[in-house]
Amino acid sequence: MQESQIRKIIKNVASRKMDAGEAMKELKFLPFEDLSFAKLDHHRALRKGFPEVVFCQNKTTKQVAAIVKKLAERNSQVLATRATEEMFNEARKHFKNAQYNEISKTMIINKNKKLKKGRIIVLSAGTSDMPVAEEAAVVAEAMGSHVERIYDVGVAGLHRLLSSKEKIDDANVLVVVAGMDGVLPSVVSGIFGKPIIAVPTSVGYGASFKGIAPLLTMLNSCSPGVVVVNIDNGFGAGYFASLVNK
Amino acid sequence: MQESQIRKIIKNVASRKMDAGEAMKELKFLPFEDLSFAKLDHHRALRKGFPEVVFCQNKTTKQVAAIVKKLAERNSQVLATRATEEMFNEARKHFKNAQYNEISKTMIINKNKKLKKGRIIVLSAGTSDMPVAEEAAVVAEAMGSHVERIYDVGVAGLHRLLSSKEKIDDANVLVVVAGMDGVLPSVVSGIFGKPIIAVPTSVGYGASFKGIAPLLTMLNSCSPGVVVVNIDNGFGAGYFASLVNK
Amino acid sequence: MQESQIRKIIKNVASRKMDAGEAMKELKFLPFEDLSFAKLDHHRALRKGFPEVVFCQNKTTKQVAAIVKKLAERNSQVLATRATEEMFNEARKHFKNAQYNEISKTMIINKNKKLKKGRIIVLSAGTSDMPVAEEAAVVAEAMGSHVERIYDVGVAGLHRLLSSKEKIDDANVLVVVAGMDGVLPSVVSGIFGKPIIAVPTSVGYGASFKGIAPLLTMLNSCSPGVVVVNIDNGFGAGYFASLVNK
Amino acid sequence: MQESQIRKIIKNVASRKMDAGEAMKELKFLPFEDLSFAKLDHHRALRKGFPEVVFCQNKTTKQVAAIVKKLAERNSQVLATRATEEMFNEARKHFKNAQYNEISKTMIINKNKKLKKGRIIVLSAGTSDMPVAEEAAVVAEAMGSHVERIYDVGVAGLHRLLSSKEKIDDANVLVVVAGMDGVLPSVVSGIFGKPIIAVPTSVGYGASFKGIAPLLTMLNSCSPGVVVVNIDNGFGAGYFASLVNK
Amino acid sequence: MQESQIRKIIKNVASRKMDAGEAMKELKFLPFEDLSFAKLDHHRALRKGFPEVVFCQNKTTKQVAAIVKKLAERNSQVLATRATEEMFNEARKHFKNAQYNEISKTMIINKNKKLKKGRIIVLSAGTSDMPVAEEAAVVAEAMGSHVERIYDVGVAGLHRLLSSKEKIDDANVLVVVAGMDGVLPSVVSGIFGKPIIAVPTSVGYGASFKGIAPLLTMLNSCSPGVVVVNIDNGFGAGYFASLVNK
Amino acid sequence: MQESQIRKIIKNVASRKMDAGEAMKELKFLPFEDLSFAKLDHHRALRKGFPEVVFCQNKTTKQVAAIVKKLAERNSQVLATRATEEMFNEARKHFKNAQYNEISKTMIINKNKKLKKGRIIVLSAGTSDMPVAEEAAVVAEAMGSHVERIYDVGVAGLHRLLSSKEKIDDANVLVVVAGMDGVLPSVVSGIFGKPIIAVPTSVGYGASFKGIAPLLTMLNSCSPGVVVVNIDNGFGAGYFASLVNK
Amino acid sequence: MQESQIRKIIKNVASRKMDAGEAMKELKFLPFEDLSFAKLDHHRALRKGFPEVVFCQNKTTKQVAAIVKKLAERNSQVLATRATEEMFNEARKHFKNAQYNEISKTMIINKNKKLKKGRIIVLSAGTSDMPVAEEAAVVAEAMGSHVERIYDVGVAGLHRLLSSKEKIDDANVLVVVAGMDGVLPSVVSGIFGKPIIAVPTSVGYGASFKGIAPLLTMLNSCSPGVVVVNIDNGFGAGYFASLVNK
Amino acid sequence: MQESQIRKIIKNVASRKMDAGEAMKELKFLPFEDLSFAKLDHHRALRKGFPEVVFCQNKTTKQVAAIVKKLAERNSQVLATRATEEMFNEARKHFKNAQYNEISKTMIINKNKKLKKGRIIVLSAGTSDMPVAEEAAVVAEAMGSHVERIYDVGVAGLHRLLSSKEKIDDANVLVVVAGMDGVLPSVVSGIFGKPIIAVPTSVGYGASFKGIAPLLTMLNSCSPGVVVVNIDNGFGAGYFASLVNK
Repeated sequence: MQESQIRKIIKNVASRKMDAGEAMKELKFLPFEDLSFAKLDHHRALRKGFPEVVFCQNKTTKQVAAIVKKLAERNSQVLATRATEEMFNEARKHFKNAQYNEISKTMIINKNKKLKKGRIIVLSAGTSDMPVAEEAAVVAEAMGSHVERIYDVGVAGLHRLLSSKEKIDDANVLVVVAGMDGVLPSVVSGIFGKPIIAVPTSVGYGASFKGIAPLLTMLNSCSPGVVVVNIDNGFGAGYFASLVNK
Repeated sequence: MQESQIRKIIKNVASRKMDAGEAMKELKFLPFEDLSFAKLDHHRALRKGFPEVVFCQNKTTKQVAAIVKKLAERNSQVLATRATEEMFNEARKHFKNAQYNEISKTMIINKNKKLKKGRIIVLSAGTSDMPVAEEAAVVAEAMGSHVERIYDVGVAGLHRLLSSKEKIDDANVLVVVAGMDGVLPSVVSGIFGKPIIAVPTSVGYGASFKGIAPLLTMLNSCSPGVVVVNIDNGFGAGYFASLVNK
Repeated sequence: MQESQIRKIIKNVASRKMDAGEAMKELKFLPFEDLSFAKLDHHRALRKGFPEVVFCQNKTTKQVAAIVKKLAERNSQVLATRATEEMFNEARKHFKNAQYNEISKTMIINKNKKLKKGRIIVLSAGTSDMPVAEEAAVVAEAMGSHVERIYDVGVAGLHRLLSSKEKIDDANVLVVVAGMDGVLPSVVSGIFGKPIIAVPTSVGYGASFKGIAPLLTMLNSCSPGVVVVNIDNGFGAGYFASLVNK
Repeated sequence: MQESQIRKIIKNVASRKMDAGEAMKELKFLPFEDLSFAKLDHHRALRKGFPEVVFCQNKTTKQVAAIVKKLAERNSQVLATRATEEMFNEARKHFKNAQYNEISKTMIINKNKKLKKGRIIVLSAGTSDMPVAEEAAVVAEAMGSHVERIYDVGVAGLHRLLSSKEKIDDANVLVVVAGMDGVLPSVVSGIFGKPIIAVPTSVGYGASFKGIAPLLTMLNSCSPGVVVVNIDNGFGAGYFASLVNK
Repeated sequence: MQESQIRKIIKNVASRKMDAGEAMKELKFLPFEDLSFAKLDHHRALRKGFPEVVFCQNKTTKQVAAIVKKLAERNSQVLATRATEEMFNEARKHFKNAQYNEISKTMIINKNKKLKKGRIIVLSAGTSDMPVAEEAAVVAEAMGSHVERIYDVGVAGLHRLLSSKEKIDDANVLVVVAGMDGVLPSVVSGIFGKPIIAVPTSVGYGASFKGIAPLLTMLNSCSPGVVVVNIDNGFGAGYFASLVNK
Repeated sequence: MQESQIRKIIKNVASRKMDAGEAMKELKFLPFEDLSFAKLDHHRALRKGFPEVVFCQNKTTKQVAAIVKKLAERNSQVLATRATEEMFNEARKHFKNAQYNEISKTMIINKNKKLKKGRIIVLSAGTSDMPVAEEAAVVAEAMGSHVERIYDVGVAGLHRLLSSKEKIDDANVLVVVAGMDGVLPSVVSGIFGKPIIAVPTSVGYGASFKGIAPLLTMLNSCSPGVVVVNIDNGFGAGYFASLVNK
Repeated sequence: MQESQIRKIIKNVASRKMDAGEAMKELKFLPFEDLSFAKLDHHRALRKGFPEVVFCQNKTTKQVAAIVKKLAERNSQVLATRATEEMFNEARKHFKNAQYNEISKTMIINKNKKLKKGRIIVLSAGTSDMPVAEEAAVVAEAMGSHVERIYDVGVAGLHRLLSSKEKIDDANVLVVVAGMDGVLPSVVSGIFGKPIIAVPTSVGYGASFKGIAPLLTMLNSCSPGVVVVNIDNGFGAGYFASLVNK
Repeated sequence: MQESQIRKIIKNVASRKMDAGEAMKELKFLPFEDLSFAKLDHHRALRKGFPEVVFCQNKTTKQVAAIVKKLAERNSQVLATRATEEMFNEARKHFKNAQYNEISKTMIINKNKKLKKGRIIVLSAGTSDMPVAEEAAVVAEAMGSHVERIYDVGVAGLHRLLSSKEKIDDANVLVVVAGMDGVLPSVVSGIFGKPIIAVPTSVGYGASFKGIAPLLTMLNSCSPGVVVVNIDNGFGAGYFASLVNK
């Protein structure tokens, strides 16, 4: 659209329907729209094969339904995070192939069936960290990454971590999810030299302060190669891991 | 420059030196520069008569000298905040008319002598808040605003505040600077119906936590018409007050 | 009442029913009531055309009903913020023309129909910030300002922001509402030179700490011309914007 | 008991059943019980006329009933704070004269009818601060103090505060209750020279952080003569005021 | 001055030089000055015998010298807190009788020699808390109170506290100063039924967070009768204690 | 499994099916599995007689039931903390001898009946701290320690503490539980020279900040011999006390 | 003294100079002094072989010299922590055998040469944590414990930790010192089943917030058997470890 | 060593000096040493071409010199961060080819001259953020990555950012460094779809709280693809970027 507008001005100048001064004036006011246009295009290219993602928290079932419908018209696959069961039920009315993951609270419509590539490993410290870990895993898969899960490998289960050594050695990037003391990413990073995306969770009580304790632990990791996302932000971790896994 | 580039392309098309396709291609890659250009232009217009401002904190005397010199080439007036005396001495070597305000730590080169307009009143709670209050006043003056100062009118000097009633009634906007408990903006707003820009200062001790206490007091003001800037940010308050005073 | 008291004393002196000493004595004890009286008067003048505003949060439906009733007797228009639907239903029993805005949770009685003046633009970063943005917009409109809304223009929708360039260039003041990272005010301020009232919202999760993250972002804005109000304080932003818009 | 033990030892020495060395040895190990005994006595004397107070929060209805019953056996008057209506209903089964204050959530059994002495004034900034203010007032009354209430005199109602000047001038001590920005104690202290017990409340939203903002404001009061108690601690303020009012 | 103005208006009415309407108009604009006038008077009465106090922190030696000189002209006694030795040396040039307390950093000019009344006891937990404790003691003495000091009676020295039982029983009010864990006020309040003004100090390290830990301990004291002032605010505690001691 | 793998390699070497070089190579890649194996063994030995403990918070009834069942197959005694009544009812279906403690929310299956050894004393400041204190006591008992309880001995009941002197003098280690101001551990440590495990609780309101206040008090204890666990972490205190009591 | 007073009363009764009633009365007022006396005695017994410890921080060289001298008169061994080199030089003037540890900033006079008993192991994560670790070690040794040091065994040096397995298995209690992310205690506790006293240090930068990050990590340790002391409190850890090691 | 031990056991089995059972037993107790050994090896492989890095902060010049010397014996290249000029001067005595970067405070010995690969772009918001940005750039280069720098492109210089569009489009990963409001990573991420490692700096004043404000902004970024490292942690960002860039 924008492009055709510019094209039209150029043509008009070329065909002398418009003089240089007028063309200049018109063009001077277009940059933003051009930018807008370019950005959209660029992004579409960039995100090819990536799902459009709806963050459902703080939205009504009605709002989510409307957004999902609109996105599904123009995208092969739509992913929604932090979706309630009610949102899923509403979505299923319009999309027979809608799928819901109860643990991660994610919903996918027109799930992409292309081969998953590379290898991301998602590790979690405890059973209670699973919703966040699953969100990361589902998002990365939806973005086309091959994902393996190694859950419940906290400090007390260090041996299980070590017994997965070979799997981990083959991964491109690790997502490590932990609440409470949040030490798992430091430990994993100390043993394996992989890039680690650490996700603090709000699991814990007392002085874990809803995720502040593991967040600080991870930010202060003595072992290099650890980066951090927001508390409970499985989505962000899965998304970044997929960017890196490509 | 940018403008001439566009003009040239248009002319080339008009004079058939370039065909529509080529022109299209050239123009597609310009938007950012256009934007850049537009923004600069727009800003220059917007800021007409406004000083370019250098924030000296965290910069070396050498860096400040270089920036001031460059700005002075293209601006009638240059304002620097949080400047040390050393920076001023360095600047004075090149600019005979450089002026330094010891209290506000501001430095002005080629001071604008146009008539000041409107009326901003800067109030401060205590003597120790003066550096911040002066910074606000000097910045607003440099931007062309007429400024009056009413200092040291904390709760204990409420009567002095009240005795300035008429002056205050004539102001367009008030800047109210206070540390410690930071109650002055609430009190001033309760008495006068003026828009107030509240500036918390780091003056105080113990539970004032370097300005957090007055910042919170001001953000929670029960009296409407109070907005807040960062702790010790006299510059931001003076700048905003001038935008509103126009 | 107070006024008539003073008048009576004056008259008594004029008519020699009271001598100067006695009058002096009487008047010496009046100042507070005078102040009270004056302040009310002064404020009434100041707020001409402005609604009396009831902050409903932490009040019972019964309390709100009583206050609204009392205010409606003496004011042409009454505005209530953070009102529940129950409060609205109670109010409608007495005021047929009561109106309720479900998104902003505002209620207006005897809505003023005068022409709106000036131009305030309220921008919001995300859909979830709408309740706060609407509160700002409704309050500013109730105070007689012409308001335009540009919602959902966060960083990911920067192009939509840019495509509203002309509208924004005509505004006197902008209210910019954002949760989570709260970067929108900085970005808007960097592009447009307008005075901006930034409103952090409690929208977000994890390390957004119910609005602390966007509050800090806004207070530290590197771009001058940004002032801040309390988290979720759409009312304060709309009120201040209207004071400035006049 | 303890007393009789000591008496016995003394008697044994007096009657030569025990020699000085043995008595010395026995007595050396008694101090704690003596202390315990003395302390109880001392406290009973100290608190004469003061109610035994039960803090009901975090206790079950059953626990409160048991404690109240036991206290009522040995005290003329029993006061319970933060009591639920359910607790009151339970208490009324055993104590016909039990009284309940719905606003302050206080319950009194065998209410003391002695003449109230001195004068404490309890001021509150807003309607929402009333539960805390009432708790202070009820506690002070139960401890025998004469209490007057001046509510809803925040910054916007400063004139009402001033119109109560004479009443306040006669008071021994003031309790000033405020949430949000918590400026009232500073303002009252600036006008009147009275000792002030400031009570921050959790009333507010956003950056009031459930009472932290007014707490800090009060702790940093620029006006001397202000002391502070815990957030929402009406009981502590009323109790201390009564100690001072005596 | 203000008074004479009112008097003049009244006289003019009485002498028919001015009619009732004009007088009314004039008087309507005076209240603030009246208030101002009244407040000054009232305060002067209130503070009779109390020292004017200069808070020297954040002021220059020059500023302090000027303020002290001005105050000394109109007051019998001038007290300065947080004064440096340099400030004292400057003051001594003009006031031969200036006295300096090295521990509390207080300076007194024209020290009042009237008999001290009542009894305030200042207790401190550790040797390092002495500067704050001394500030409280010196301020209270300057205000005419009889003060006794019991220092270094922390938990480890509980027996020394108990051995001062009789002294403490005779006091009207206690000032209890403590850093680190700040438990002393709770303990003292549990043993003695006296009103206690608790002063947290910034003495400590690590998780004492420059006085936050003892501040919170004191605000949460389980023992009623404890009120709190700002961290290191010996002045505020001594001032309030004197108000109560009267 | 791992063991059999190693055994197989050894056998192959012994039977000359594999030469030393190959065996070396194989074994070099096994250490982790060996570690895993060894660690399990070592831990089993270490914890002999100690219950396996299930932390039920953040787990579903179904998850807890599955874990408890699995543990009960291999352990003589299973302890679950923070269990709901629903979880207990589910567990009782499979384990007739399951016991539930309503106050501490602990559940034990196949309760160990061996003689308890040593002496741990659990003290609590208030009635509301009992759930946490009981959790500590039940855990320590399940681990084979003899435990005595002295509850409700806060500052106001200091004499009751002192009257338990002899009991306390015989203990190996004390667990001291307190919310609000959290002063009890400091006081107990000042009187008795015993090692103290201090447990802050979230009991309190306002500036106790859900346990932060007592946590800080305890961390800053002026009396040596005090260590601290997480807020409300009765389990951790009981566990550590048992390790020390052995 | 106190003892002789009691003795005198007893004698007077025995010799009939005083009757039982009078004696009773006298004794009733002694408990506090008795307590004081008893407590001293008790403590002396308790601390037999333990050093009297002087905390030098916030004290002057002069004050420390005086305290050390006084303690040395009555104790075989005196330990001072956080002592400066200046303090040591002052002490050495009077005590030839004074020893100073530059790393831990501890000073010992009349060092006890008795055989050290039991086994405490002090581990530290990094080189920078050594001052705190050494303080713990020196204090424990001064209290008669046998101490071994294993320093610089952070996550990156996990293998060094594991290679010290046998030493650690023989210890009674571990002191684990770490700054930054503070994960070492969790890791050590996951591998070894020993009671661990975790000491967070202020070593780190940025979001380690001078020790808050490791403090929170340690308080939230997922591995049971970990207790925590104040940031940088090597003394407290060494003291508690010695109590437990006995 | 360890390896030879295993080899010996295998040989003994092969030569029948030891039977399978004994060998099994021996090997079962080796895992830790094996692990230690393996880990070292693994790490050496992993880090091939990567510099050993010395974090100099909190270390003495002497300590740094010793560590650098030891590392230089076994590594081709040694990198030291947060090194002082004094440390560099000391190092230069032994290593003629030592290089020092005054801005980033980094020191390199035996600088690797291999071809840099891939493309990392390091962007910074302001001049004051340069030390942190340079640290990231230098570390990434030392690890073999090709790095480009785009500094001083904050919100006010958005156009400069846009004019670097093509460069940025070719990068594998971006490091974005910003203090104060920390909005740059969000903005960059909104325009370009690249993985971004955001580095908050302690540059700023007032409510930037030494980097907390930009840290929170970055953690809450509304634009996916942003991960965060500790405040001022240029090293961590450069290290992670290099892992990803490979």
